Amino acid sequence: MQEKNIIFGTRAVIEAIASGKSIEKVFVRAGLQGELFDELMAAMKESQVVWQKVPVERINRLTTKNHQGVVALTSPIEYQNIEKVVTDALAAGRQPIVVILDGVTDVRNFGAIARTAECAGVDAIVIPEKGSAPVNGDAIKTSAGALFRIPVCRVAKPWYTLKFLKENGFVIIGASEKSETVYHQVDYKQPLAIVMGAEDTGISSQVLKMVDTLVSIPISGEIGSLNVSVAAGILIYEAIKQRIV
Amino acid sequence: MQEKNIIFGTRAVIEAIASGKSIEKVFVRAGLQGELFDELMAAMKESQVVWQKVPVERINRLTTKNHQGVVALTSPIEYQNIEKVVTDALAAGRQPIVVILDGVTDVRNFGAIARTAECAGVDAIVIPEKGSAPVNGDAIKTSAGALFRIPVCRVAKPWYTLKFLKENGFVIIGASEKSETVYHQVDYKQPLAIVMGAEDTGISSQVLKMVDTLVSIPISGEIGSLNVSVAAGILIYEAIKQRIV
Repeated sequence: MQEKNIIFGTRAVIEAIASGKSIEKVFVRAGLQGELFDELMAAMKESQVVWQKVPVERINRLTTKNHQGVVALTSPIEYQNIEKVVTDALAAGRQPIVVILDGVTDVRNFGAIARTAECAGVDAIVIPEKGSAPVNGDAIKTSAGALFRIPVCRVAKPWYTLKFLKENGFVIIGASEKSETVYHQVDYKQPLAIVMGAEDTGISSQVLKMVDTLVSIPISGEIGSLNVSVAAGILIYEAIKQRIV
Repeated sequence: MQEKNIIFGTRAVIEAIASGKSIEKVFVRAGLQGELFDELMAAMKESQVVWQKVPVERINRLTTKNHQGVVALTSPIEYQNIEKVVTDALAAGRQPIVVILDGVTDVRNFGAIARTAECAGVDAIVIPEKGSAPVNGDAIKTSAGALFRIPVCRVAKPWYTLKFLKENGFVIIGASEKSETVYHQVDYKQPLAIVMGAEDTGISSQVLKMVDTLVSIPISGEIGSLNVSVAAGILIYEAIKQRIV
């Protein structure tokens, strides 16, 4: 962990939140209390900052400075608001494509998907606050810088974002090797959300309930599943192709 | 480098070659000579083993054992003969697909492409002896084990393999973001070779001469190019789709 991505000290972290700085996560020492702590909690709640209570040893591993039990990891990118991105795209008369990564944890997969999404002109990538690959150096490198160019939206509840998208006329397509609907049999020409699940367990049950159609990519080998970034590329470009033709 | 992937000593390496063991590369100390050396050279020539003359320090870094100036790195996979793989597939009445990696050097890209190829039922992957990602632990891990299942063929001259494929009725399609032919406008239903170039410089000039059609995947963003394993996935699955429909 590089020191430059860290803000330490309760007051400093409160100020960082107030200034609108993009924060990946705040670690708070278990047992911390007092007036300043209450102020921090209020600030995190208001700005929907992701935080976690941890033993002090965990914080000591992040910095040797006088951290007072509070350390924030800043994000190298500015997260965007999905509702604004989508509303703006619809207002501009476009048929947006949003890619939802429901638990993709490998930074290289995340980076590669961001690269593909940027190349294809996808409107936004949505990731959950918890259980998602961090936007770190490896992710940015694998994305070839795409993570600086494509809107990335961090949301507390991906299923809630899907609900919002459905209410705005989106069709939700999820990738699952178990589906009998082949990916290119589906219409991608409407406002579209493509949901890719976790590398190991696939799409979570809560998100699955919001998916309109599960699609599979035909597999004839023994390995049984594609890399998630390759699968995302195939689905995204099927959408692009249908829209061009 | 793990010791278990190394065979050292001139006689041991000669025996390994004679036994048909799959050898990645042999390093020979500069200045080595004598009868046994001549025997080694003859064995490497006959079995088309890739070898390189290096300073003794290079070999000392590979092993501290009594190597006599000769060390072989063994391969975790058995390379196949492309002519045999293709001839067998044609004889079985199939329309083979071969993926040629002309200078893909990143082991993870190599592994991811192998995984996609295995999932799609591609007949073989062809890599050049020089300037290709090694079949190492990272490549195998990223391939999800596909490198053990799909025939990998190492060839001295990829252009010569393409010549052989053309003589056997293959159409050669190469990926290039500079082409104005969009990838899905082309017929993939014949015996097919898909050529992917190096991550940085693309397809080499010698190989380019053998390509029938260069195709591009439409890019609308600023990054300008897809990850090679994602691009390979899009082309391979376009071929699969055309063959199923």
